Amino acid sequence: MNVFIMENAISIKEQFIDFIHSLQNNICKAIEATDDKAIFSEDKWERGEGGGGITRVIENGNVFEKGGINTSIVYGEVTDNMRKQLNIEGQEWFACGISAVLHPGNPFVPTVHFNYRYFEVYDGHKNIIDSWFGGGTDLTPCYLFEEDIKHFHGIHKNACDAFDITLYPAFKKHCDEYFVNKHRNNESRGVGGIFYDYQRGDEKKDKTFWLNFADACGNSFLKAYIPIVEKRKETAFTNEQKHWQEIRRGRYVEFNLVHDRGTLFGLHTNGRTESILMSLPPTVRFNYDHHPAAGSEEEKLEQVLQSPREWV
Amino acid sequence: MNVFIMENAISIKEQFIDFIHSLQNNICKAIEATDDKAIFSEDKWERGEGGGGITRVIENGNVFEKGGINTSIVYGEVTDNMRKQLNIEGQEWFACGISAVLHPGNPFVPTVHFNYRYFEVYDGHKNIIDSWFGGGTDLTPCYLFEEDIKHFHGIHKNACDAFDITLYPAFKKHCDEYFVNKHRNNESRGVGGIFYDYQRGDEKKDKTFWLNFADACGNSFLKAYIPIVEKRKETAFTNEQKHWQEIRRGRYVEFNLVHDRGTLFGLHTNGRTESILMSLPPTVRFNYDHHPAAGSEEEKLEQVLQSPREWV
Repeated sequence: MNVFIMENAISIKEQFIDFIHSLQNNICKAIEATDDKAIFSEDKWERGEGGGGITRVIENGNVFEKGGINTSIVYGEVTDNMRKQLNIEGQEWFACGISAVLHPGNPFVPTVHFNYRYFEVYDGHKNIIDSWFGGGTDLTPCYLFEEDIKHFHGIHKNACDAFDITLYPAFKKHCDEYFVNKHRNNESRGVGGIFYDYQRGDEKKDKTFWLNFADACGNSFLKAYIPIVEKRKETAFTNEQKHWQEIRRGRYVEFNLVHDRGTLFGLHTNGRTESILMSLPPTVRFNYDHHPAAGSEEEKLEQVLQSPREWV
Repeated sequence: MNVFIMENAISIKEQFIDFIHSLQNNICKAIEATDDKAIFSEDKWERGEGGGGITRVIENGNVFEKGGINTSIVYGEVTDNMRKQLNIEGQEWFACGISAVLHPGNPFVPTVHFNYRYFEVYDGHKNIIDSWFGGGTDLTPCYLFEEDIKHFHGIHKNACDAFDITLYPAFKKHCDEYFVNKHRNNESRGVGGIFYDYQRGDEKKDKTFWLNFADACGNSFLKAYIPIVEKRKETAFTNEQKHWQEIRRGRYVEFNLVHDRGTLFGLHTNGRTESILMSLPPTVRFNYDHHPAAGSEEEKLEQVLQSPREWV
């Protein structure tokens, strides 16, 4: 990484790297404590074109059937593909981020995802000519417990409101607009959360603001998610409810492989496939033309996914 | 359809439509006879922008866990999206085709796919300004039985050789090049077959040639596939072998959703999602960084998928 280190100051980049590594450690510890059986395995990997990452995966736990909490710090030359896909003008790029997905075994415990990232672009002389922050988190239940969704949104709204009360409504809307299976009659992947991208900083909200914002949102994750896990993890479920979870997981696969920009960008630019696709659920079903029974709990979920609500 | 019917002749289009409907009927009957339990359910659907299709799906059979034999006849105005993606110049388009995927329950019976299609493009006055044929078939086993693969390739080679002995080598190669998970270190989806596209016809091989070629290949399917099914369908298997099948099915999902042009074109252009995604396997596993044991039957398959062979 030393080619890019700035002199005489802890750069935003270095601070962001500290943030993602510290968050990865904290969240892995807390998830292991909640699971009380499985522990994360770690794969450190290097990328031929520059950089690498730390992939931590948990499997076959008491609570978590599969999940990953990954960090990566990658960089390289701007390729024609990136110029076209990302509208990048410079010569070199740098990206670092944390990305997590947790798939619980119990269909009453929702799947959850979060990701916080920072990007820099340089001219031919290592000068930063563009940089931005992105990230967010969203919840994907198979069954609707409104109090859980309100809790998850409420914790993230509080985190956002401490910075600026206009942020949560804007980022909640962006999340609802992004995580959509357009090919499924615009069905939402889940019940949303917050999502933001291309935050470059300005006079009112500088780069330190967005660094602190990512830190606050990232550190809200455990408060937002663990109480839901604790409340639902012992709920008994039937084979039919497990099948429903696996059908819903099919929609998760469809979104990630057909629509998710991060996944497709990684797969098409020689990213580490196993780290990118750790987001895919452990067991999945694709039933032809499945429709839940009228008036069922399963149908209630589908209705909410057809028209996103305000939760807090 | 009557807007496009030509006067005083049975057009290539009409002949191709007869071919796909007749093939759909014949193959559905034969598959039901082989399965000896499940029968196809039929959904006739219409497309708002023009045309429709007949989707026939079989599920939970003795042999076939899930499969579909679908035909569609669709048409409409050339959109900007099509101009960009397909390099189409005209004002209106027409496409008809048959598309089939069969996922057997037994991991020793290979999954199979075939597709034969015909495309026309018109100027603003219903004159045909371009037209082409495409299609092919490929086999996706979880375990390697060389005699099965040789049989499947051999039947299709014979069908091709009756037309021109240069076709099988060219279309076998095209198939090997197309059905590849580039993001999986260029792993092949399966052991190939034949694949061809943009066959417009010329003085030596006119449109009737390509119509007859599709007919001959399509009608070779049962001879190529059913003997393999009959030979393997009673083979006992373990839970571990079923899991391996579900892991391999994960790669099938990845290819279809990330790389397959037909699937992505359908999903991004308001096709009937349930008909397009009938190709996805019924149960699937995504295990993190799975590798079969050294020297195992599972590893043998992976090795063949890394370097396509000549089978006949």
